[in-house]
Amino acid sequence: MKIAIDVMGGDLAPIETVKGAIEALEFTSSQIVLIGDKGKIEIELKKYKFEKSRIEIIHTSEVILNEDKPVKAIKSKKDSSMVVGMKMLKDGEIEGFVSAGNTGALLAGGLLKVGRIKGIDRPALCSIYPTSKGACVLTDAGANADCKPRNLFEFAHMASIYADKVFEIENPKVGLVNIGAEEGKGNALVKESYDLLKESELNFIGNLEARNIPNATADVIVCDGFTGNVILKLSEGVAKSFIDMLKKSFLKNIGTKLAALLVKNSLKDMKKMLDYTEYGGAPLLGCNGLIMKAHGSSNSKAFMNALKYTEKCALTNVVSEITKVLEK
Amino acid sequence: MKIAIDVMGGDLAPIETVKGAIEALEFTSSQIVLIGDKGKIEIELKKYKFEKSRIEIIHTSEVILNEDKPVKAIKSKKDSSMVVGMKMLKDGEIEGFVSAGNTGALLAGGLLKVGRIKGIDRPALCSIYPTSKGACVLTDAGANADCKPRNLFEFAHMASIYADKVFEIENPKVGLVNIGAEEGKGNALVKESYDLLKESELNFIGNLEARNIPNATADVIVCDGFTGNVILKLSEGVAKSFIDMLKKSFLKNIGTKLAALLVKNSLKDMKKMLDYTEYGGAPLLGCNGLIMKAHGSSNSKAFMNALKYTEKCALTNVVSEITKVLEK
Repeated sequence: MKIAIDVMGGDLAPIETVKGAIEALEFTSSQIVLIGDKGKIEIELKKYKFEKSRIEIIHTSEVILNEDKPVKAIKSKKDSSMVVGMKMLKDGEIEGFVSAGNTGALLAGGLLKVGRIKGIDRPALCSIYPTSKGACVLTDAGANADCKPRNLFEFAHMASIYADKVFEIENPKVGLVNIGAEEGKGNALVKESYDLLKESELNFIGNLEARNIPNATADVIVCDGFTGNVILKLSEGVAKSFIDMLKKSFLKNIGTKLAALLVKNSLKDMKKMLDYTEYGGAPLLGCNGLIMKAHGSSNSKAFMNALKYTEKCALTNVVSEITKVLEK
Repeated sequence: MKIAIDVMGGDLAPIETVKGAIEALEFTSSQIVLIGDKGKIEIELKKYKFEKSRIEIIHTSEVILNEDKPVKAIKSKKDSSMVVGMKMLKDGEIEGFVSAGNTGALLAGGLLKVGRIKGIDRPALCSIYPTSKGACVLTDAGANADCKPRNLFEFAHMASIYADKVFEIENPKVGLVNIGAEEGKGNALVKESYDLLKESELNFIGNLEARNIPNATADVIVCDGFTGNVILKLSEGVAKSFIDMLKKSFLKNIGTKLAALLVKNSLKDMKKMLDYTEYGGAPLLGCNGLIMKAHGSSNSKAFMNALKYTEKCALTNVVSEITKVLEK
C-alpha cells in the first residue's frame, strides 16, 4: 500500500513533514510517498537513517500558499504538491493523501480533482474531539459553513463509519448538537435534520446539548461546519485559558510551586489528552479517495499520526464502506 | 424605584426567590415587589428580619410551569406571576422584572405582553461570558435560533449599550463570532452581518475566532442565538470536565492531596470566576421594559445579583438608551 504526504504543506514544512514521514515508517507498513521539491526533500532525508525502499519521492515544482485563492490555486498550480497528490489519489496510484496545506484549497481540490462519492452532496471534515473518556468524532469540523438537513444526515453516516472502522466504536451513538434536549428544539436546520436522523438506521440518541459534548455523551457529534468549527476552537480556547490560570496559581508562592511538582504527572496526562497531535488530522470524507487534512501547525508527531490513521482508514476500507452505505 | 421578582419561577422557588429578594435589600435601594402566591411568600418572609416598607406583595393564583407551551401559557394563564409581572412592567408600575421561569414563555411574554422597542426586529438575551480578564457580554444567548443579518446588527448595538452602561466598559470592542479571522469568512449570515457592522458606528473589531472568546479579545460577542447558546453551554461543559479531571488528579495519593490543599484558594478563585450566580441573569434587551432572565437553577445569591443588575440597568437607562439609538 502507498500513502502520500504533501511535503510542502504546513507552517513547519518541509522539515516536520519529512521527519513525520520517517517516524511513520515505524508505525505503518505502507510505502510512503513524499510529494514536493526533490532538492529540499533530499536535504531533509539526509538527516535520517531509514529503509530506502519504503520511501518514494515525487518531484513537484509549485506550492499552494496559505494566501492563495483556493479554487484558482487548484486550477492553475497544476504542478503543486497538493494538486499532484490529489491526481495520484484519483488515479489510484496512492491509497491516501495527507496535507497540512491551505484548507480551502484542499477542500476545493477534494471536489474538483478527486471528486465526490456518488450520492454525497458535500464532503465533510471529521475531526477528533478528545474527552476524558476517549475520543469522539465531530463532523463537520468546518468544510461547510452553510448546510442543508441532507448534509447533516450524510455527515452522520460517514462519521459513524469512520468511528466504527478506525476507532473501533461499535454502533456509535450519534448526537445532534442542539440548544435543548427535547425534540422540536433548535433552528430550522437541526429541526429538519432531527427528523431525517430519527428515521435512519444509525444509533441516533437525539439532541446533544453542548454542555454534554465533553462528557462523551455521544460518540459522533453532528452539526454544520460553522458550529463544528466553533466547538473545536472554543474548546481549545477554554482549555488553554484554564491551563494558563492554573499555571498562574501554581506560581504564586513556594507552597503552590510544591503543589505543581506533586501533580505534574496528572497535568501532563491532561495536556496529552487535549493534544491534537495524538490524532494528527481529520479526513475529508465523502470524496472518491482518502484525503487527510492535518493541522496547519503540525509537527512531526502530528504528521506521523496523520499517516498512521490514513493507513488505518485505507486498511479498513472507510471510503468504499461509505460508498456502499450512501449509495443505498 | 420598584423592581419585581417572579417568586414562583425557577427550580428552587419560592424559597430561594424570596431569600434572594431579602438579600437584595442590602445591595439595592429599590422597593422590591414579590409577585406570586401570597400564602407561600408570607411563610418564607417569616424567616427573615427586614425593612417591611421596602417589600411589597402582589398575589397571583397561577404559575407557568416549565412544561407549559410558551405562547399558550402566556395567553391563557392571565393571573400567573410571570404574566402579571409583565403587565406591571408594561404599565410602568415597576422598572424591571426578574424571572427564572420557563424561558420560552418569558421570551413570548416579552414580545406579546411587553412589546418590542420601535425599530427592533427581535429582542435578544445578553448574557455574561466570564473570562480571567473580566466579564464580556454575549448576545444572543439563545432567544433566536434563526437570525437575519439585521438581527445581529441590532444585537450588537443593544449589547454595546448594556456593556457600557452596566459594566462600565467604554466604547466596547464588538467581535463577530466566526470560523476565520479574515473578512469574507463564514456562513452567509455572518458574511452579511460583517458588512452591516463594518458600516456601523460601533467599535467593531471584526471577526472573532471562538478560540479567542475566553481571552476577552472582544467585550461584546455577537452571534445568532443557536451559536450563542452552544458557546455558553460548551464553555460550561469544558470547564466542568476540567475541574473534574483536576479533582481526580488531586485524589490520587497523599502527595496530590497535599497539593490540593496548597492551591485551594486559587481553585476557589477560578470557580468563583466561572460562577454564573455572580451575575445572576441575562436581560432580554429590545423590549419596551426591562426583563431579566435568571438561570432556572438560580439560588438566592443569583436572584440577589439579578435584582442588583436589574436596578443598575434601570438606573442607567439602558432601555431608553436603546430606544434612542435604535430609532435612528
